Amino acid sequence: MKFSQKLDQAIIDNNSLLCVGLDPDMDKIPAGFKAEEHPLFEFNKAIIDATHDLVCAYKPNSAFYEALGDFGVHQLKLTVEYIQTYHEHCPVILDAKRGDIDSTNNGYSDFAFDYLNVDAITLQPYLGSEALQPFLNHSDKGCIILCRTSNKGAGEFQDLVIANEAKQSQPLYLEVAKQVSTSWNTNNNCMLVVGATYPEELKKIREVVPDMFFLVPGIGTQGGDIEATLGNGLRKDKSGLIISSSRAILYASSDEDFAEKAREKAMATRDEMNKYR
Amino acid sequence: MKFSQKLDQAIIDNNSLLCVGLDPDMDKIPAGFKAEEHPLFEFNKAIIDATHDLVCAYKPNSAFYEALGDFGVHQLKLTVEYIQTYHEHCPVILDAKRGDIDSTNNGYSDFAFDYLNVDAITLQPYLGSEALQPFLNHSDKGCIILCRTSNKGAGEFQDLVIANEAKQSQPLYLEVAKQVSTSWNTNNNCMLVVGATYPEELKKIREVVPDMFFLVPGIGTQGGDIEATLGNGLRKDKSGLIISSSRAILYASSDEDFAEKAREKAMATRDEMNKYR
Repeated sequence: MKFSQKLDQAIIDNNSLLCVGLDPDMDKIPAGFKAEEHPLFEFNKAIIDATHDLVCAYKPNSAFYEALGDFGVHQLKLTVEYIQTYHEHCPVILDAKRGDIDSTNNGYSDFAFDYLNVDAITLQPYLGSEALQPFLNHSDKGCIILCRTSNKGAGEFQDLVIANEAKQSQPLYLEVAKQVSTSWNTNNNCMLVVGATYPEELKKIREVVPDMFFLVPGIGTQGGDIEATLGNGLRKDKSGLIISSSRAILYASSDEDFAEKAREKAMATRDEMNKYR
Repeated sequence: MKFSQKLDQAIIDNNSLLCVGLDPDMDKIPAGFKAEEHPLFEFNKAIIDATHDLVCAYKPNSAFYEALGDFGVHQLKLTVEYIQTYHEHCPVILDAKRGDIDSTNNGYSDFAFDYLNVDAITLQPYLGSEALQPFLNHSDKGCIILCRTSNKGAGEFQDLVIANEAKQSQPLYLEVAKQVSTSWNTNNNCMLVVGATYPEELKKIREVVPDMFFLVPGIGTQGGDIEATLGNGLRKDKSGLIISSSRAILYASSDEDFAEKAREKAMATRDEMNKYR
Protein backbone atom coordinates (compact mmCIF):
# COMPACT_ATOMS: atom_id res chain seq x y z
CA MET A 1 0.00 0.00 0.00
CA LYS A 2 1.17 3.55 -0.73
CA PHE A 3 2.72 5.25 2.33
CA SER A 4 0.22 8.10 2.37
CA GLN A 5 -2.76 5.72 2.37
CA LYS A 6 -1.22 3.56 5.09
CA LEU A 7 -0.57 6.68 7.16
CA ASP A 8 -4.10 8.07 6.72
CA GLN A 9 -5.53 4.71 7.75
CA ALA A 10 -3.31 4.40 10.85
CA ILE A 11 -4.27 7.93 11.92
CA ILE A 12 -7.95 6.95 11.73
CA ASP A 13 -7.62 3.44 13.20
CA ASN A 14 -5.57 4.55 16.21
CA ASN A 15 -7.04 8.06 16.40
CA SER A 16 -3.47 9.26 16.64
CA LEU A 17 -0.98 11.74 15.22
CA LEU A 18 1.75 10.31 17.45
CA CYS A 19 4.83 8.77 15.86
CA VAL A 20 7.18 6.92 18.19
CA GLY A 21 10.85 7.39 17.41
CA LEU A 22 12.61 4.05 17.81
CA ASP A 23 15.99 5.42 18.86
CA PRO A 24 17.40 2.87 21.28
CA ASP A 25 20.64 3.70 23.02
CA MET A 26 22.73 1.00 24.71
CA ASP A 27 23.47 3.42 27.56
CA LYS A 28 19.80 4.09 28.26
CA ILE A 29 17.86 0.87 27.72
CA PRO A 30 17.18 -1.22 30.86
CA ALA A 31 20.30 -3.10 31.93
CA GLY A 32 18.65 -6.50 31.46
CA PHE A 33 18.70 -6.13 27.67
CA LYS A 34 22.46 -5.96 27.48
CA ALA A 35 22.76 -9.73 27.81
CA GLU A 36 20.42 -10.32 24.85
CA GLU A 37 21.77 -11.37 21.47
CA HIS A 38 20.04 -8.36 19.86
CA PRO A 39 19.52 -5.84 22.67
CA LEU A 40 18.28 -2.92 20.55
CA PHE A 41 15.81 -5.13 18.72
CA GLU A 42 14.50 -6.78 21.90
CA PHE A 43 14.00 -3.38 23.50
CA ASN A 44 12.20 -2.10 20.38
CA LYS A 45 9.96 -5.19 20.32
CA ALA A 46 8.76 -4.47 23.83
CA ILE A 47 8.13 -0.80 22.97
CA ILE A 48 6.30 -1.72 19.75
CA ASP A 49 4.11 -4.32 21.46
CA ALA A 50 3.21 -1.74 24.11
CA THR A 51 2.36 1.12 21.73
CA HIS A 52 1.29 -0.22 18.30
CA ASP A 53 -2.39 0.65 18.82
CA LEU A 54 -1.54 4.22 19.85
CA VAL A 55 0.62 5.45 16.97
CA CYS A 56 0.27 6.57 13.35
CA ALA A 57 3.84 5.52 12.51
CA TYR A 58 7.19 4.37 13.86
CA LYS A 59 10.35 6.26 13.07
CA PRO A 60 13.67 4.50 13.71
CA ASN A 61 16.60 6.87 13.35
CA SER A 62 19.39 5.10 11.47
CA ALA A 63 22.15 6.78 13.52
CA PHE A 64 21.27 4.84 16.68
CA TYR A 65 21.79 1.56 14.84
CA GLU A 66 24.80 2.59 12.74
CA ALA A 67 26.56 3.56 15.98
CA LEU A 68 27.00 -0.22 16.48
CA GLY A 69 28.03 -0.89 12.88
CA ASP A 70 26.74 -3.92 10.98
CA PHE A 71 25.48 -5.43 14.25
CA GLY A 72 23.22 -2.39 14.75
CA VAL A 73 22.11 -2.21 11.12
CA HIS A 74 21.03 -5.86 11.36
CA GLN A 75 18.90 -5.00 14.40
CA LEU A 76 17.32 -2.12 12.48
CA LYS A 77 16.27 -4.64 9.84
CA LEU A 78 14.91 -7.03 12.49
CA THR A 79 12.92 -4.12 13.95
CA VAL A 80 11.33 -3.15 10.63
CA GLU A 81 10.57 -6.82 9.86
CA TYR A 82 8.92 -7.23 13.25
CA ILE A 83 6.61 -4.26 12.69
CA GLN A 84 5.74 -5.49 9.21
CA THR A 85 5.05 -9.03 10.43
CA TYR A 86 3.06 -8.35 13.59
CA HIS A 87 1.79 -4.78 13.24
CA GLU A 88 1.66 -4.26 9.52
CA HIS A 89 -0.86 -1.44 9.73
CA CYS A 90 1.91 0.81 11.19
CA PRO A 91 3.96 2.60 8.54
CA VAL A 92 7.70 2.85 9.16
CA ILE A 93 9.65 6.02 8.44
CA LEU A 94 13.44 5.64 8.24
CA ASP A 95 14.89 8.81 9.72
CA ALA A 96 18.17 8.85 7.84
CA LYS A 97 18.48 12.41 6.50
CA ARG A 98 20.27 11.16 3.42
CA GLY A 99 21.27 13.11 0.33
CA ASP A 100 23.97 12.54 -2.29
CA ILE A 101 24.25 12.85 -6.09
CA ASP A 102 21.69 10.86 -8.05
CA SER A 103 23.74 7.78 -8.95
CA THR A 104 24.85 7.43 -5.31
CA ASN A 105 21.35 7.96 -3.97
CA ASN A 106 20.45 4.69 -5.70
CA GLY A 107 22.50 2.98 -2.98
CA TYR A 108 20.68 4.76 -0.16
CA SER A 109 17.35 4.12 -1.85
CA ASP A 110 18.23 0.39 -2.01
CA PHE A 111 19.12 0.49 1.70
CA ALA A 112 15.78 2.07 2.63
CA PHE A 113 13.34 0.54 0.17
CA ASP A 114 14.88 -2.85 -0.73
CA TYR A 115 16.98 -4.00 2.21
CA LEU A 116 14.82 -2.47 4.96
CA ASN A 117 11.60 -2.09 2.96
CA VAL A 118 10.46 0.94 4.97
CA ASP A 119 7.55 3.11 3.82
CA ALA A 120 9.29 6.49 3.89
CA ILE A 121 12.64 8.20 4.43
CA THR A 122 13.81 11.64 5.56
CA LEU A 123 16.04 13.52 3.09
CA GLN A 124 18.36 16.54 2.90
CA PRO A 125 17.39 19.33 0.46
CA TYR A 126 20.87 20.81 -0.14
CA LEU A 127 21.64 18.95 -3.41
CA GLY A 128 18.26 19.77 -4.95
CA SER A 129 15.52 17.64 -6.49
CA GLU A 130 17.55 16.42 -9.47
CA ALA A 131 19.83 14.54 -7.08
CA LEU A 132 16.93 13.08 -5.10
CA GLN A 133 15.13 11.51 -8.07
CA PRO A 134 16.05 7.93 -7.05
CA PHE A 135 13.90 8.52 -3.95
CA LEU A 136 11.22 10.74 -5.51
CA ASN A 137 10.64 8.22 -8.31
CA HIS A 138 9.35 5.69 -5.77
CA SER A 139 5.79 6.96 -6.00
CA ASP A 140 4.55 4.55 -3.31
CA LYS A 141 7.18 5.66 -0.78
CA GLY A 142 7.23 8.84 1.30
CA CYS A 143 10.03 11.38 0.75
CA ILE A 144 10.17 13.65 3.77
CA ILE A 145 12.41 16.65 3.13
CA LEU A 146 14.12 18.67 5.87
CA CYS A 147 12.58 22.15 5.84
CA ARG A 148 12.93 23.70 9.29
CA THR A 149 14.76 21.42 11.71
CA SER A 150 14.15 21.27 15.48
CA ASN A 151 17.69 22.01 16.69
CA LYS A 152 18.75 25.20 18.47
CA GLY A 153 21.08 26.33 15.68
CA ALA A 154 18.67 25.49 12.83
CA GLY A 155 18.51 29.11 11.70
CA GLU A 156 22.19 29.45 10.74
CA PHE A 157 21.38 28.76 7.08
CA GLN A 158 17.65 27.97 7.17
CA ASP A 159 16.78 31.54 8.23
CA LEU A 160 18.97 33.29 5.65
CA VAL A 161 16.79 35.58 3.59
CA ILE A 162 16.77 34.88 -0.12
CA ALA A 163 16.88 37.97 -2.32
CA ASN A 164 14.09 37.92 -4.83
CA GLU A 165 13.28 40.94 -6.94
CA ALA A 166 10.13 39.49 -8.47
CA LYS A 167 8.35 38.91 -5.17
CA GLN A 168 8.71 39.27 -1.45
CA SER A 169 11.97 37.99 -0.02
CA GLN A 170 11.70 34.97 2.26
CA PRO A 171 13.97 32.73 4.33
CA LEU A 172 15.58 29.64 2.88
CA TYR A 173 13.30 27.24 4.77
CA LEU A 174 10.26 28.77 3.06
CA GLU A 175 12.00 28.50 -0.31
CA VAL A 176 12.53 24.81 0.41
CA ALA A 177 8.85 24.45 1.38
CA LYS A 178 7.76 26.23 -1.78
CA GLN A 179 10.04 24.24 -4.11
CA VAL A 180 9.09 20.88 -2.61
CA SER A 181 5.37 21.60 -2.72
CA THR A 182 5.27 23.19 -6.17
CA SER A 183 7.84 21.26 -8.20
CA TRP A 184 9.15 18.15 -6.38
CA ASN A 185 5.83 16.57 -5.57
CA THR A 186 4.76 15.29 -8.98
CA ASN A 187 4.24 11.80 -7.53
CA ASN A 188 2.33 13.23 -4.59
CA ASN A 189 4.75 11.51 -2.21
CA CYS A 190 6.57 14.45 -0.58
CA MET A 191 6.28 15.71 2.98
CA LEU A 192 8.33 18.18 5.05
CA VAL A 193 10.22 18.00 8.35
CA VAL A 194 9.30 20.96 10.57
CA GLY A 195 10.46 21.12 14.19
CA ALA A 196 7.90 21.59 16.99
CA THR A 197 10.45 23.84 18.67
CA TYR A 198 9.66 26.58 16.12
CA PRO A 199 5.87 27.13 16.23
CA GLU A 200 6.00 30.50 14.43
CA GLU A 201 7.97 29.03 11.54
CA LEU A 202 5.58 26.05 11.50
CA LYS A 203 2.69 28.49 11.07
CA LYS A 204 4.40 30.25 8.16
CA ILE A 205 5.17 26.94 6.45
CA ARG A 206 1.56 25.78 6.87
CA GLU A 207 0.41 29.04 5.22
CA VAL A 208 2.67 28.37 2.23
CA VAL A 209 1.89 24.62 2.10
CA PRO A 210 -1.74 24.10 3.14
CA ASP A 211 -2.13 20.47 2.02
CA MET A 212 1.07 18.61 2.73
CA PHE A 213 1.89 16.34 5.68
CA PHE A 214 4.59 17.56 8.07
CA LEU A 215 6.77 15.26 10.17
CA VAL A 216 7.25 17.18 13.42
CA PRO A 217 10.05 16.20 15.79
CA GLY A 218 10.90 18.19 18.90
CA ILE A 219 8.13 17.58 21.43
CA GLY A 220 9.10 15.79 24.64
CA THR A 221 12.78 16.05 25.58
CA GLN A 222 13.47 18.83 23.06
CA GLY A 223 10.73 20.98 24.61
CA GLY A 224 8.32 21.64 21.72
CA ASP A 225 4.79 22.61 22.80
CA ILE A 226 1.93 20.29 21.74
CA GLU A 227 -0.82 22.94 21.79
CA ALA A 228 1.20 25.36 19.62
CA THR A 229 2.20 22.54 17.26
CA LEU A 230 -1.39 21.49 16.67
CA GLY A 231 -2.70 25.06 16.57
CA ASN A 232 -0.15 26.20 14.01
CA GLY A 233 0.43 23.00 12.06
CA LEU A 234 -2.87 21.20 11.55
CA ARG A 235 -4.46 21.21 8.11
CA LYS A 236 -8.07 22.28 7.76
CA ASP A 237 -9.09 18.60 7.90
CA LYS A 238 -7.53 18.29 11.41
CA SER A 239 -4.83 15.98 10.09
CA GLY A 240 -1.56 16.57 8.22
CA LEU A 241 0.86 16.14 11.13
CA ILE A 242 3.04 13.21 12.20
CA ILE A 243 4.29 14.30 15.61
CA SER A 244 7.29 12.38 16.77
CA SER A 245 8.47 11.66 20.29
CA SER A 246 11.39 9.37 21.13
CA ARG A 247 13.24 9.67 24.42
CA ALA A 248 10.25 10.84 26.51
CA ILE A 249 8.42 7.61 25.63
CA LEU A 250 11.28 5.10 25.31
CA TYR A 251 12.79 6.08 28.63
CA ALA A 252 9.63 6.95 30.61
CA SER A 253 11.04 4.45 33.09
CA SER A 254 14.46 2.84 33.28
CA ASP A 255 13.16 -0.08 35.33
CA GLU A 256 11.38 -3.31 34.48
CA ASP A 257 8.12 -1.41 33.97
CA PHE A 258 9.61 0.58 31.05
CA ALA A 259 7.14 -0.84 28.49
CA GLU A 260 4.11 -0.18 30.70
CA LYS A 261 5.33 3.37 31.38
CA ALA A 262 6.07 3.87 27.68
CA ARG A 263 2.48 2.90 26.92
CA GLU A 264 1.14 5.30 29.54
CA LYS A 265 3.30 8.13 28.21
CA ALA A 266 2.37 7.37 24.59
CA MET A 267 -1.33 7.30 25.46
CA ALA A 268 -1.13 10.56 27.41
CA THR A 269 0.79 12.21 24.57
CA ARG A 270 -1.65 10.98 21.92
CA ASP A 271 -4.61 12.12 24.01
CA GLU A 272 -3.10 15.53 24.65
CA MET A 273 -2.61 15.97 20.89
CA ASN A 274 -6.21 14.99 20.28
CA LYS A 275 -7.43 17.67 22.71
CA TYR A 276 -6.21 20.29 20.25
CA ARG A 277 -7.50 18.69 17.04
CA MET B 1 47.93 11.13 13.64
CA LYS B 2 45.68 14.11 12.87
CA PHE B 3 43.90 13.76 9.51
CA SER B 4 45.38 16.94 8.07
CA GLN B 5 48.95 15.84 8.89
CA LYS B 6 48.37 12.37 7.44
CA LEU B 7 46.93 13.95 4.30
CA ASP B 8 49.80 16.42 3.87
CA GLN B 9 52.27 13.55 4.27
CA ALA B 10 50.50 11.29 1.74
CA ILE B 11 50.38 14.16 -0.80
CA ILE B 12 54.15 14.55 -0.45
CA ASP B 13 55.03 10.83 -0.27
CA ASN B 14 52.96 9.85 -3.32
CA ASN B 15 53.29 13.22 -5.08
CA SER B 16 49.56 13.03 -5.57
CA LEU B 17 46.32 14.98 -5.15
CA LEU B 18 44.34 11.97 -6.37
CA CYS B 19 41.78 10.38 -4.07
CA VAL B 20 40.28 7.09 -5.23
CA GLY B 21 36.60 6.68 -4.45
CA LEU B 22 36.01 3.11 -3.26
CA ASP B 23 32.45 2.80 -4.55
CA PRO B 24 32.07 -0.85 -5.57
CA ASP B 25 28.86 -1.87 -7.27
CA MET B 26 27.83 -5.54 -7.50
CA ASP B 27 26.60 -4.92 -11.06
CA LYS B 28 29.92 -3.50 -12.23
CA ILE B 29 32.71 -5.43 -10.51
CA PRO B 30 34.21 -8.31 -12.51
CA ALA B 31 31.93 -11.34 -12.46
CA GLY B 32 34.52 -13.52 -10.72
CA PHE B 33 34.08 -11.62 -7.43
CA LYS B 34 30.44 -12.56 -7.08
CA ALA B 35 31.35 -16.02 -5.76
CA GLU B 36 33.54 -14.53 -2.98
CA GLU B 37 32.33 -14.40 0.60
CA HIS B 38 32.92 -10.61 0.66
CA PRO B 39 32.85 -9.49 -2.98
CA LEU B 40 32.96 -5.72 -2.40
CA PHE B 41 35.87 -6.07 0.03
CA GLU B 42 37.85 -8.43 -2.23
CA PHE B 43 37.39 -6.04 -5.16
CA ASN B 44 38.46 -3.08 -3.01
CA LYS B 45 41.53 -4.99 -1.80
CA ALA B 46 42.71 -5.48 -5.38
CA ILE B 47 42.11 -1.79 -6.18
CA ILE B 48 43.90 -0.66 -3.02
CA ASP B 49 46.91 -2.92 -3.62
CA ALA B 50 47.16 -1.57 -7.18
CA THR B 51 46.89 2.15 -6.29
CA HIS B 52 48.10 2.79 -2.71
CA ASP B 53 51.34 4.45 -3.81
CA LEU B 54 49.51 6.79 -6.20
CA VAL B 55 46.88 8.38 -3.96
CA CYS B 56 46.62 10.97 -1.20
CA ALA B 57 43.49 9.34 0.27
CA TYR B 58 40.76 6.74 -0.22
CA LYS B 59 37.12 7.72 -0.08
CA PRO B 60 34.57 4.90 0.33
CA ASN B 61 31.01 6.18 -0.15
CA SER B 62 28.79 4.60 2.48
CA ALA B 63 25.79 4.32 0.12
CA PHE B 64 27.45 1.60 -1.97
CA TYR B 65 27.85 -0.58 1.12
CA GLU B 66 24.53 0.25 2.79
CA ALA B 67 22.79 -0.84 -0.42
CA LEU B 68 23.57 -4.40 0.75
CA GLY B 69 22.54 -3.76 4.35
CA ASP B 70 24.56 -5.14 7.28
CA PHE B 71 26.46 -7.41 4.87
CA GLY B 72 27.69 -4.34 2.97
CA VAL B 73 28.45 -2.31 6.10
CA HIS B 74 30.62 -5.17 7.35
CA GLN B 75 32.59 -5.08 4.08
CA LEU B 76 33.06 -1.32 4.49
CA LYS B 77 34.63 -2.04 7.88
CA LEU B 78 36.86 -4.76 6.39
CA THR B 79 37.95 -2.29 3.70
CA VAL B 80 38.92 0.43 6.18
CA GLU B 81 40.72 -2.13 8.38
CA TYR B 82 42.64 -3.40 5.37
CA ILE B 83 43.88 0.08 4.47
CA GLN B 84 44.86 0.78 8.06
CA THR B 85 46.68 -2.54 8.41
CA TYR B 86 48.58 -2.69 5.13
CA HIS B 87 48.66 0.89 3.83
CA GLU B 88 48.35 2.95 6.97
CA HIS B 89 49.88 6.05 5.40
CA CYS B 90 46.69 6.48 3.32
CA PRO B 91 43.99 8.50 5.10
CA VAL B 92 40.41 7.28 4.70
CA ILE B 93 37.52 9.69 4.15
CA LEU B 94 34.05 8.27 4.76
CA ASP B 95 31.80 9.89 2.18
CA ALA B 96 28.52 9.71 4.08
CA LYS B 97 27.04 13.22 3.82
CA ARG B 98 25.51 12.91 7.27
CA GLY B 99 23.73 15.59 9.28
CA ASP B 100 21.17 15.38 12.08
CA ILE B 101 20.54 17.15 15.40
CA ASP B 102 23.45 17.09 17.84
CA SER B 103 22.37 14.20 20.09
CA THR B 104 21.70 12.02 17.04
CA ASN B 105 24.95 12.99 15.36
CA ASN B 106 26.69 11.22 18.25
CA GLY B 107 25.48 7.98 16.66
CA TYR B 108 26.85 8.86 13.23
CA SER B 109 30.08 10.05 14.80
CA ASP B 110 30.38 6.68 16.59
CA PHE B 111 29.78 4.92 13.25
CA ALA B 112 32.52 6.89 11.51
CA PHE B 113 35.13 7.39 14.21
CA ASP B 114 34.67 4.43 16.58
CA TYR B 115 33.23 1.55 14.54
CA LEU B 116 35.00 2.35 11.26
CA ASN B 117 37.80 4.50 12.68
CA VAL B 118 38.08 6.58 9.49
CA ASP B 119 40.09 9.81 9.40
CA ALA B 120 37.40 12.13 8.03
CA ILE B 121 33.73 12.32 7.07
CA THR B 122 31.64 14.40 4.66
CA LEU B 123 28.76 16.38 6.24
CA GLN B 124 25.62 18.31 5.29
CA PRO B 125 25.51 22.00 6.24
CA TYR B 126 21.71 22.45 6.41
CA LEU B 127 21.31 22.03 10.21
CA GLY B 128 24.17 24.41 11.01
CA SER B 129 27.32 24.10 13.10
CA GLU B 130 25.54 23.71 16.47
CA ALA B 131 24.14 20.38 15.26
CA LEU B 132 27.49 19.20 13.89
CA GLN B 133 29.46 19.69 17.12
CA PRO B 134 29.75 15.91 17.77
CA PHE B 135 31.85 15.76 14.58
CA LEU B 136 33.58 19.14 14.84
CA ASN B 137 34.70 18.36 18.41
CA HIS B 138 36.89 15.53 17.10
CA SER B 139 39.86 17.80 16.50
CA ASP B 140 41.97 15.00 15.03
CA LYS B 141 39.32 14.05 12.44
CA GLY B 142 38.44 15.86 9.22
CA CYS B 143 34.96 17.39 8.85
CA ILE B 144 34.34 17.99 5.15
CA ILE B 145 31.24 20.14 4.64
CA LEU B 146 29.20 20.17 1.43
CA CYS B 147 29.57 23.61 -0.14
CA ARG B 148 29.01 23.38 -3.89
CA THR B 149 28.14 19.83 -4.98
CA SER B 150 29.03 18.30 -8.35
CA ASN B 151 25.53 17.30 -9.52
CA LYS B 152 23.67 18.95 -12.41
CA GLY B 153 20.92 20.36 -10.21
CA ALA B 154 23.25 21.60 -7.45
CA GLY B 155 22.21 25.20 -7.97
CA GLU B 156 18.54 24.78 -6.98
CA PHE B 157 19.27 26.00 -3.44
CA GLN B 158 23.06 26.44 -3.46
CA ASP B 159 22.84 29.29 -5.99
CA LEU B 160 20.05 31.19 -4.26
CA VAL B 161 21.26 34.70 -3.53
CA ILE B 162 21.22 35.69 0.12
CA ALA B 163 19.99 39.21 0.77
CA ASN B 164 22.47 41.11 2.88
CA GLU B 165 22.19 44.84 3.38
CA ALA B 166 25.48 45.22 5.19
CA LYS B 167 27.61 43.88 2.36
CA GLN B 168 27.46 42.45 -1.12
CA SER B 169 24.82 39.76 -1.63
CA GLN B 170 26.17 36.32 -2.41
CA PRO B 171 24.88 32.84 -3.19
CA LEU B 172 24.19 30.32 -0.44
CA TYR B 173 27.23 28.18 -1.29
CA LEU B 174 29.53 31.15 -0.61
CA GLU B 175 27.71 31.82 2.67
CA VAL B 176 28.41 28.20 3.62
CA ALA B 177 32.08 28.62 2.64
CA LYS B 178 32.35 31.81 4.65
CA GLN B 179 30.63 30.40 7.77
CA VAL B 180 32.67 27.21 7.78
CA SER B 181 35.98 29.03 7.29
CA THR B 182 35.34 31.87 9.74
CA SER B 183 33.36 30.29 12.56
CA TRP B 184 33.19 26.47 12.35
CA ASN B 185 36.89 25.81 12.06
CA THR B 186 38.05 26.48 15.61
CA ASN B 187 39.73 23.05 15.74
CA ASN B 188 41.31 23.62 12.35
CA ASN B 189 39.71 20.39 11.08
CA CYS B 190 37.18 21.64 8.49
CA MET B 191 37.32 21.29 4.72
CA LEU B 192 34.77 21.89 1.95
CA VAL B 193 33.27 19.75 -0.82
CA VAL B 194 33.39 21.61 -4.15
CA GLY B 195 32.48 19.86 -7.42
CA ALA B 196 34.97 19.85 -10.31
CA THR B 197 31.98 20.27 -12.61
CA TYR B 198 31.70 23.95 -11.53
CA PRO B 199 35.14 25.52 -12.12
CA GLU B 200 33.84 29.12 -11.91
CA GLU B 201 32.22 28.47 -8.54
CA LEU B 202 35.40 26.70 -7.41
CA LYS B 203 37.36 29.86 -8.27
CA LYS B 204 34.99 32.05 -6.25
CA ILE B 205 35.15 29.72 -3.25
CA ARG B 206 38.98 29.69 -3.39
CA GLU B 207 38.95 33.51 -3.38
CA VAL B 208 36.80 33.51 -0.22
CA VAL B 209 38.69 30.62 1.43
CA PRO B 210 42.36 30.86 0.45
CA ASP B 211 43.77 28.36 2.97
CA MET B 212 41.36 25.47 3.36
CA PHE B 213 41.51 22.05 1.72
CA PHE B 214 38.72 21.23 -0.77
CA LEU B 215 37.53 17.71 -1.54
CA VAL B 216 36.70 17.83 -5.26
CA PRO B 217 34.52 15.11 -6.78
CA GLY B 218 33.32 15.22 -10.36
CA ILE B 219 36.32 14.50 -12.60
CA GLY B 220 36.16 11.31 -14.69
CA THR B 221 32.66 10.00 -15.37
CA GLN B 222 30.97 13.21 -14.23
CA GLY B 223 33.02 15.23 -16.74
CA GLY B 224 34.89 17.77 -14.59
CA ASP B 225 38.03 19.21 -16.20
CA ILE B 226 41.37 18.60 -14.46
CA GLU B 227 43.16 21.67 -15.82
CA ALA B 228 40.36 24.01 -14.75
CA THR B 229 40.09 22.31 -11.36
CA LEU B 230 43.78 22.78 -10.63
CA GLY B 231 43.92 26.26 -12.14
CA ASN B 232 40.98 27.54 -10.13
CA GLY B 233 41.26 25.45 -6.99
CA LEU B 234 44.92 25.16 -5.99
CA ARG B 235 46.18 27.12 -3.02
CA LYS B 236 49.26 29.30 -3.40
CA ASP B 237 51.37 26.42 -2.03
CA LYS B 238 50.23 24.20 -4.96
CA SER B 239 48.32 21.96 -2.61
CA GLY B 240 44.88 22.23 -0.92
CA LEU B 241 42.93 19.88 -3.20
CA ILE B 242 41.84 16.27 -2.75
CA ILE B 243 40.56 15.35 -6.21
CA SER B 244 38.39 12.30 -6.23
CA SER B 245 37.74 9.83 -9.03
CA SER B 246 35.75 6.62 -8.61
CA ARG B 247 34.14 4.90 -11.59
CA ALA B 248 36.75 5.95 -14.17
CA ILE B 249 39.42 4.14 -12.13
CA LEU B 250 37.47 1.25 -10.57
CA TYR B 251 35.98 0.20 -13.90
CA ALA B 252 38.83 1.10 -16.26
CA SER B 253 38.45 -2.53 -17.37
CA SER B 254 35.73 -5.04 -16.61
CA ASP B 255 38.00 -8.00 -17.32
CA GLU B 256 40.64 -9.83 -15.30
CA ASP B 257 43.09 -6.99 -15.90
CA PHE B 258 40.86 -4.53 -13.97
CA ALA B 259 43.46 -3.88 -11.24
CA GLU B 260 46.29 -3.31 -13.74
CA LYS B 261 44.08 -0.95 -15.76
CA ALA B 262 42.95 0.82 -12.58
CA ARG B 263 46.61 1.41 -11.74
CA GLU B 264 47.33 2.76 -15.22
CA LYS B 265 44.32 5.06 -15.06
CA ALA B 266 45.17 6.24 -11.54
CA MET B 267 48.76 6.96 -12.56
CA ALA B 268 47.68 8.85 -15.69
CA THR B 269 45.16 10.87 -13.67
CA ARG B 270 47.66 11.70 -10.93
CA ASP B 271 50.27 12.69 -13.51
CA GLU B 272 47.81 14.86 -15.43
CA MET B 273 46.95 16.67 -12.18
CA ASN B 274 50.64 17.22 -11.47
CA LYS B 275 51.12 18.84 -14.91
CA TYR B 276 49.00 21.76 -13.69
CA ARG B 277 50.49 22.14 -10.21
